[in-house]
Amino acid sequence: MKTPKISEAVVRRLPVYLRYLQQLQDSNIRTVSSYELGQKLDMNPAQIRKDLAYFGEFGRKGIGYEVGYLVEKIKQILKIDRHLNCALIGAGHLGIALSNYNRFTQEKLCITAIFDNSVDKIGTEVGTIKIQPLDEIERTIQDRDILIGIITVPAPEAQKVADRLVGSGVKGILNFAPVSLRVPSHVSVRNADLTTELQTLAYYID
Amino acid sequence: MKTPKISEAVVRRLPVYLRYLQQLQDSNIRTVSSYELGQKLDMNPAQIRKDLAYFGEFGRKGIGYEVGYLVEKIKQILKIDRHLNCALIGAGHLGIALSNYNRFTQEKLCITAIFDNSVDKIGTEVGTIKIQPLDEIERTIQDRDILIGIITVPAPEAQKVADRLVGSGVKGILNFAPVSLRVPSHVSVRNADLTTELQTLAYYID
Repeated sequence: MKTPKISEAVVRRLPVYLRYLQQLQDSNIRTVSSYELGQKLDMNPAQIRKDLAYFGEFGRKGIGYEVGYLVEKIKQILKIDRHLNCALIGAGHLGIALSNYNRFTQEKLCITAIFDNSVDKIGTEVGTIKIQPLDEIERTIQDRDILIGIITVPAPEAQKVADRLVGSGVKGILNFAPVSLRVPSHVSVRNADLTTELQTLAYYID
Repeated sequence: MKTPKISEAVVRRLPVYLRYLQQLQDSNIRTVSSYELGQKLDMNPAQIRKDLAYFGEFGRKGIGYEVGYLVEKIKQILKIDRHLNCALIGAGHLGIALSNYNRFTQEKLCITAIFDNSVDKIGTEVGTIKIQPLDEIERTIQDRDILIGIITVPAPEAQKVADRLVGSGVKGILNFAPVSLRVPSHVSVRNADLTTELQTLAYYID
């Protein structure tokens, strides 16, 4: 099946659905209604039905959605039914937190290389991954077929790191540094910085 | 001026505009066109003009937007022209990274209390903030008029922590734990977890 073009707002909700559906799967729950999903996720069931209609007409009145099927379909749509290697650049508190977190939760989206410039850190291990010097970015990314870079360096370093990642063939960047990165149009960037999140949240607080 | 109701997609872009406009301000640049903003932020200038039209008709053909005015207006719209105290719960690597980061970048959205259950951490300081035991959440939040809670505890603890924050009067939660939180409708939640970000990014990588 060809994946339909869907809006970014829908794409952003799919991982949220997936996370809850996987919880249901772990509890051996086989079907779920849009009403139950809405209750649990604090969302409008009509919105959920509309989003899930991208996957086809498989929700049934009075029964709902088949959990296992939806999990597989969402993984297909998000294209996470494949291994995607990630590199993390910047092994400070944030970088280490992200690496530890990734080790326990991810199956196929996996941090497989970590880089830092500090001599104290190079050669030490985070989990089973040895921290490498930034000099080795290009070769490692190409050798290990890494497609995603996670940037957790200080803001003034971020653009330089992004340029090197893009030059090495990375297709997506998750940027935790509080700067707007310039990348070519074939590279996707998602910004995940605390300021942006907090400022967005502030809007909704009266 | 009454703040107009704007969509979440627009709200999420405002902090991105703000960050760049503040960079311009720091460089004493007084006006900027939507074309320049688009170039720098890798966005469509027409989209930017449409978003900024929420603030009024103050962009001028051939001149552009007045940077200082836009900065103030965006702060007003986001309601960050006021002090908002935040509490952080969970002083692991992620919590410490966020606290350190917040100390250097935020003016008015400020982490003013940190909580953790580990006896090794209680009483130690992150920057100038002493880590408190979870027992003190309720009293501290009420005494210090804290309206935002930042959750960086492990997933199994997150809902319990959220319930205590909501019970203490918090109006917004920034959730870094990989679970969907249930909160009353008067409380806003933003989820910022690595899995969701990476899965969303994966969709855009061919």
